Amino acid sequence: MANTEVNKLWGGRFVGDTDPIMEKFNASIAYDQRMWDADIRGSKAYVKALEKAKLVSTEEMEQILNGMDQIHGEWSKGAFVIKAGDEDIHTANERRLKELIGAPAGKLHTGRSRNDQVVTDMRLWLRDAITTLTNDTLQLISTMVERAAAEIEVLFPGYTHMQRAQPIRWSHWILSHAVALRRDVERLLEIKKRVNVLPLGSGAIAGTPFDIDRELLQKELAFDGISLNSMDATGQRDFVVEFLFWASLCLTHLSKMAEDLMLYSTKEFSFIALSDAYSTGSSLMPQKKNADSLELIRSKAGRVFGRCAGFMMTLKGLPSTYNKDLQEDKEAMFDCYDTVQAVLQVTTGVMSTLKINQSVMEAALSPDMLATDLAYFLVRKGVPFREAHGISGKAVFTAESKNIALNQLTAEDLSAVSPLFGSDVSSVWDYRSSVEQYSAPGGTAKTSITAQTHILYVLGREQ
Amino acid sequence: MANTEVNKLWGGRFVGDTDPIMEKFNASIAYDQRMWDADIRGSKAYVKALEKAKLVSTEEMEQILNGMDQIHGEWSKGAFVIKAGDEDIHTANERRLKELIGAPAGKLHTGRSRNDQVVTDMRLWLRDAITTLTNDTLQLISTMVERAAAEIEVLFPGYTHMQRAQPIRWSHWILSHAVALRRDVERLLEIKKRVNVLPLGSGAIAGTPFDIDRELLQKELAFDGISLNSMDATGQRDFVVEFLFWASLCLTHLSKMAEDLMLYSTKEFSFIALSDAYSTGSSLMPQKKNADSLELIRSKAGRVFGRCAGFMMTLKGLPSTYNKDLQEDKEAMFDCYDTVQAVLQVTTGVMSTLKINQSVMEAALSPDMLATDLAYFLVRKGVPFREAHGISGKAVFTAESKNIALNQLTAEDLSAVSPLFGSDVSSVWDYRSSVEQYSAPGGTAKTSITAQTHILYVLGREQ
Amino acid sequence: MANTEVNKLWGGRFVGDTDPIMEKFNASIAYDQRMWDADIRGSKAYVKALEKAKLVSTEEMEQILNGMDQIHGEWSKGAFVIKAGDEDIHTANERRLKELIGAPAGKLHTGRSRNDQVVTDMRLWLRDAITTLTNDTLQLISTMVERAAAEIEVLFPGYTHMQRAQPIRWSHWILSHAVALRRDVERLLEIKKRVNVLPLGSGAIAGTPFDIDRELLQKELAFDGISLNSMDATGQRDFVVEFLFWASLCLTHLSKMAEDLMLYSTKEFSFIALSDAYSTGSSLMPQKKNADSLELIRSKAGRVFGRCAGFMMTLKGLPSTYNKDLQEDKEAMFDCYDTVQAVLQVTTGVMSTLKINQSVMEAALSPDMLATDLAYFLVRKGVPFREAHGISGKAVFTAESKNIALNQLTAEDLSAVSPLFGSDVSSVWDYRSSVEQYSAPGGTAKTSITAQTHILYVLGREQ
Amino acid sequence: MANTEVNKLWGGRFVGDTDPIMEKFNASIAYDQRMWDADIRGSKAYVKALEKAKLVSTEEMEQILNGMDQIHGEWSKGAFVIKAGDEDIHTANERRLKELIGAPAGKLHTGRSRNDQVVTDMRLWLRDAITTLTNDTLQLISTMVERAAAEIEVLFPGYTHMQRAQPIRWSHWILSHAVALRRDVERLLEIKKRVNVLPLGSGAIAGTPFDIDRELLQKELAFDGISLNSMDATGQRDFVVEFLFWASLCLTHLSKMAEDLMLYSTKEFSFIALSDAYSTGSSLMPQKKNADSLELIRSKAGRVFGRCAGFMMTLKGLPSTYNKDLQEDKEAMFDCYDTVQAVLQVTTGVMSTLKINQSVMEAALSPDMLATDLAYFLVRKGVPFREAHGISGKAVFTAESKNIALNQLTAEDLSAVSPLFGSDVSSVWDYRSSVEQYSAPGGTAKTSITAQTHILYVLGREQ
Repeated sequence: MANTEVNKLWGGRFVGDTDPIMEKFNASIAYDQRMWDADIRGSKAYVKALEKAKLVSTEEMEQILNGMDQIHGEWSKGAFVIKAGDEDIHTANERRLKELIGAPAGKLHTGRSRNDQVVTDMRLWLRDAITTLTNDTLQLISTMVERAAAEIEVLFPGYTHMQRAQPIRWSHWILSHAVALRRDVERLLEIKKRVNVLPLGSGAIAGTPFDIDRELLQKELAFDGISLNSMDATGQRDFVVEFLFWASLCLTHLSKMAEDLMLYSTKEFSFIALSDAYSTGSSLMPQKKNADSLELIRSKAGRVFGRCAGFMMTLKGLPSTYNKDLQEDKEAMFDCYDTVQAVLQVTTGVMSTLKINQSVMEAALSPDMLATDLAYFLVRKGVPFREAHGISGKAVFTAESKNIALNQLTAEDLSAVSPLFGSDVSSVWDYRSSVEQYSAPGGTAKTSITAQTHILYVLGREQ
Repeated sequence: MANTEVNKLWGGRFVGDTDPIMEKFNASIAYDQRMWDADIRGSKAYVKALEKAKLVSTEEMEQILNGMDQIHGEWSKGAFVIKAGDEDIHTANERRLKELIGAPAGKLHTGRSRNDQVVTDMRLWLRDAITTLTNDTLQLISTMVERAAAEIEVLFPGYTHMQRAQPIRWSHWILSHAVALRRDVERLLEIKKRVNVLPLGSGAIAGTPFDIDRELLQKELAFDGISLNSMDATGQRDFVVEFLFWASLCLTHLSKMAEDLMLYSTKEFSFIALSDAYSTGSSLMPQKKNADSLELIRSKAGRVFGRCAGFMMTLKGLPSTYNKDLQEDKEAMFDCYDTVQAVLQVTTGVMSTLKINQSVMEAALSPDMLATDLAYFLVRKGVPFREAHGISGKAVFTAESKNIALNQLTAEDLSAVSPLFGSDVSSVWDYRSSVEQYSAPGGTAKTSITAQTHILYVLGREQ
Repeated sequence: MANTEVNKLWGGRFVGDTDPIMEKFNASIAYDQRMWDADIRGSKAYVKALEKAKLVSTEEMEQILNGMDQIHGEWSKGAFVIKAGDEDIHTANERRLKELIGAPAGKLHTGRSRNDQVVTDMRLWLRDAITTLTNDTLQLISTMVERAAAEIEVLFPGYTHMQRAQPIRWSHWILSHAVALRRDVERLLEIKKRVNVLPLGSGAIAGTPFDIDRELLQKELAFDGISLNSMDATGQRDFVVEFLFWASLCLTHLSKMAEDLMLYSTKEFSFIALSDAYSTGSSLMPQKKNADSLELIRSKAGRVFGRCAGFMMTLKGLPSTYNKDLQEDKEAMFDCYDTVQAVLQVTTGVMSTLKINQSVMEAALSPDMLATDLAYFLVRKGVPFREAHGISGKAVFTAESKNIALNQLTAEDLSAVSPLFGSDVSSVWDYRSSVEQYSAPGGTAKTSITAQTHILYVLGREQ
Repeated sequence: MANTEVNKLWGGRFVGDTDPIMEKFNASIAYDQRMWDADIRGSKAYVKALEKAKLVSTEEMEQILNGMDQIHGEWSKGAFVIKAGDEDIHTANERRLKELIGAPAGKLHTGRSRNDQVVTDMRLWLRDAITTLTNDTLQLISTMVERAAAEIEVLFPGYTHMQRAQPIRWSHWILSHAVALRRDVERLLEIKKRVNVLPLGSGAIAGTPFDIDRELLQKELAFDGISLNSMDATGQRDFVVEFLFWASLCLTHLSKMAEDLMLYSTKEFSFIALSDAYSTGSSLMPQKKNADSLELIRSKAGRVFGRCAGFMMTLKGLPSTYNKDLQEDKEAMFDCYDTVQAVLQVTTGVMSTLKINQSVMEAALSPDMLATDLAYFLVRKGVPFREAHGISGKAVFTAESKNIALNQLTAEDLSAVSPLFGSDVSSVWDYRSSVEQYSAPGGTAKTSITAQTHILYVLGREQ
């Protein structure tokens, strides 16, 4: 244990040993090693700034850069050995550097603190993660838009309150989820802008007292901006929580889509069939084919929001600047990234392989879903809508009482409800022409749907 | 009860009565009446689109506009009477319109659904609310920036882990919170952009089958854009949840600032004293002066995040389009707005009236807080930082062992620790010159702080 | 404002005025007045303890008791007038007492603090609230058990993963939710035990320095126990959060039941029809009948959990003893109570009035749901289950390939899959006898279901 | 991949391959292997019931029992090899059994489903985990009680609103946290009762159709009861969520204690000093000694509550019986257990090793903290408390105006405030006798504190 203490970056004034349970409780290496590449990139940039400030010689800089490249190689090959005392990735890399190049390694941390180092690592890591997630989301949207374009002729019931409402295009449904995801992309790019800000050069709290050129650091690490205040830069984690919340909102969107698809894939609806590749069976019931992929997608919204809720609670009421509580940031960030990425990929797979049962979907359209059109028929003859709604409601009630479909009401039945119903009412009972009426922007008519696919296509290409 | 049914917008096919408990459980008028103005504005715009589509005559339009103005007057004067059967603000306003102008009122809802009406109301309301909150946040930032500029000469201990770390300027602390709030403003403006989108013309689910000119509606209601997909427009609430989360993040920032201020106002720190206007006393202990305002600020982060968490949970796994579950959106939105607004105002009051005890703050600076500078003293003489950190740590340990301050170590004490410590080490023990070293962007030197106030000032003016 | 200050219970050492926004932000009277009755009960008990301790005379006690009764009358009749400066219910009642009886009113608060007074009020209020909720939950369970007993002959598909799994009794489904609610009752009674503990006599923090007989207080107020530690008694709120969590868990149970019922009431399932009393219609679509009651039930789980999450976050990291942050406890408690009570009542209404479509339910049973039984047929002939499961799976696959029902496979089809299938296999295809096999405790056989209803009946009667 | 399919427990009717991303997304073996022991115990009990029901021969039972013992040995030694296709611990163990004993392995799953198997495993695992946590919590309480007894003579300021309130015993503070933890133990034991219920024999949904003796299973596995309804047994997870919430509440209690201790260990308070074993340093600032252990304790309340919030959200609105969403239960359960256990151990370490600075603590007592006693002095002379509170407040104000301590007011000063202040008022200014007044149950007098330690000691011994 005493040996371990010696290795620590802060051991100077300490005399006692650390409780081994505390040691483990305190260490983050088990998960923050994932940022090894970002940590090395940050250190390589930093040593260049140190050299410019004459805090290391050019030769020392070269040694450090070479050492860091060697460490990079070890991590890449899975050959890096974590030792007792490596409480975090920063300690591990610096410890290894010292083993490789000796004394000059001790200069790398000049004017730097783990407080600004760790957020630099996280911002570099998250920036790349956001790029990946942006692409994955765009890929999913593009899959959906293609499908919407290909299956634009398919009609099926639109539901509100889980009850049949009005006939719509299947593509309308697909695109309703795609436009929500499109907003998620927009949000993610806004977050990226705030993530991509350089904190290095903030020290532990007060800034740096040396001639560290922060613009050089920014350029080396390709950051969009430089943090404005060193206490804020080291102590705030809103760049993390807004990512966690983004993940939650995105998966809430996908939980909604998954819920719809699960309904549609019940035996009772039978609108769609998932590919076997995204289904599983039962260990007891041989006939079962379960949409496990959709259930997992639905479930992950909870998981990810839990991470967001947990970290928000951790942040609540925390004094400013760095407190160890902030260490909760990394596992939450990694888990949300991994989960969202897997969900996006599986959803893309599900959406590109599921089969629709067009005949069942269209057979599910029923005349009562045209009751609104029946009311509009009267509106077009001058009846105020509120009255027309009531009349159409009575027609529905008559049909239900007679246990027949709404379009099976006789001329007498209808004229008993309103004298304005003539033989021309028969024009109402056509699903396809009903749908085509909804041609205003956002509606379910073919032109409107085509316009929506076009907009999403253009937006996707612009990224 | 039968009478009540008659008034309902959807009563046509229903024969049974509603359970009175269910009636109350279902109604939203108790809180959504708050959107009476937005509801009227939306209806006035809508009737213009109806007239353009020849679904109402110009005369009917005028009647409806006049009726709506009259209803507006009633609400303004607190004279509007809610009646049994007014389950929501939409029903209430239309019911009243009918009483005032008769038959033409029945035409107002043509092609519209409460599904698109309610989100139109909410977006109009929230847009205005966001403007108010933006201004309130900017006001708070500006108060803080002014204070930071005025008290720039005050030094005090910077803390990490709630332990004294390095001497900093009091203004540095103030600005660290101001720049976090500045990001909150940035986020809020991004959200506003997504809130300010017209959903009207989406109907219940499929869109509108009439020649409703959505661009006219957009212009009348000053929206920035038009919703792309009617199912998404009526069924998604991400514009609400991102606002709820914004509120949570903003108040988490303020909970952090409040926590610091509470620490600083303890007897033990005694750095600041709140104005009596933001303090309260005890019903039992006569001497108590409690910083209730700060405690309330701190507590509200939980309240507001609870609203966000609750509504996110409600949304999870919901089928798409409108489901009654979405009715939970409004109370959450109102409560978060009210709470954040009150918190911002009270925080502005607290920050503009609190008094600082400069002498106590500066007396709290202690030589051990310059241990980093002592290490840097050696770094400047060529000692690698890691080694210098260890040497300085030993000096701290020696001072602690002797129970004296770090700057009271004798020349012998110091040279025992490192021969590089000469008489020039005395230059280290000056807090003010220590602080001035941190002149890189974001640091605590006077120039750096002044630059920060300037940036925030310019950003605030640009809004 | 100066006048207002005078009224405050703590104004002695204060000279400045309170900011009116702060005044409102700080006040709790808008909601805590709901505990007027508990507050009066607490004070009446307390004055008896004061009298016993000779801190008030018997005559003064009588005056206070009479005054309190008068105040009780005013609240009961809605005649109590809240005045400016009444920041909470304690202040309001004591202010009124002084108006009514003069000087002796000033003795009532001797040795008491609002810190112990408010938790006394809350515990009294919540104890009664829990009794109400216990009864409401038992009422719902009893409704469900009766229905399960009455409709025990009805079979329908049991689902897992939202896919048809095995034939079960409809009563089995009902009881599966009833037993979960039964555990909720058990939990609620455990919580009640912890709620029903006397905190009065704890003062602000240190206890009471007078001869206040806490056992007398306990008896007067019918508490089960006396708080052990005055700091804990005034500063902890776990009795509130465990109630909030209870509410969340109970409503999560009901959200599950509501989700099932919504599925069953879709057109596609058509297993049940809600009473009109618990349904609503659409302002646009005349044919719609929406299960709004179920959607509201489902949504409230989110609302209530949001309250729990919010208050937990408020509590996190709070220093011990009373901090104003705790004021968030009351609105959360009231809202959860109101919401759960309404949900329980509406659910009871829904469950006692919905109609089932037995023929549709039984028609939804399909031979593939007996694939497990087909495997068990082989198991009974000695085939290891794992192998039998595979064989039955192949039979399912054959039937699907031929597009016929599983029970329509010919003798040849079946013997091609396994030679053990003889003519006796026909016995498998009977849903009613399938169900009767599941007679172990907890299963779906009639005897097992009857046993379950009996257990729930007995447990309900014991309360 | 095809090979993999063959191994799956449900592969019979499936023809397509699973997407490898989906495969990984679906698998739980990475974490549920942790329940290997429980899974084996469950299977061993189950095969005995199968034998009793004559579904396996005695010989086959012996083979299975031996095979399971062998698998147990492999897991114990870390020699068990997980293979592709082992999607969960149940599959892995059964696959291995088949490798070891061949055909009879295929009989083990007769009448069992993974649906009842997995909850059996979880309940067995959690039961043991609860026992561990109960002991750990009792250990912490006992450490605290011992400390409270040992340091009963130490006085220090009691705080409310983070402001000095009244003198109390340090032990009073310790015990205030111990009694909260005591309630946590009580809750945990209640939860254990509900966890310790046998679900095995519930099959996938409908129960078991064989003569499986559930009472035999109960006895073999030492469960306290048998689940009442098979659908509830396999589909509900309240036994998990109530544990997750328990963990959250317990850690919220500890976050409060940690917050207090962090305050007390600031330089400004200096009441306590943490052992080096529970402190860490800074990589930049040599003088820093940070209470990282306390910060970590405080932070974990958020982490654990996030797990609870996440799983609650996952459960919301889920249809009944088993859905794959439930798979989120295990990681949440494991993480909460691990976290709470570590926190309890570290807290025990912190509490048993921290050093108090008695002289600093007692020096922090100031005469204004006796202002309440000053008021009580008048109360004892017959002044109504409300008036006495005001008089004492005026004395405080006078002292503050004169910038002297409250007990330095002259006889003239005091009699100017109230003529009742005579020379006997000097008796008020003794902290130790002040504290001794609070001798009612729960108070801070020595007898009262001793009584509290005794109660906790007795309760701890009863477990």
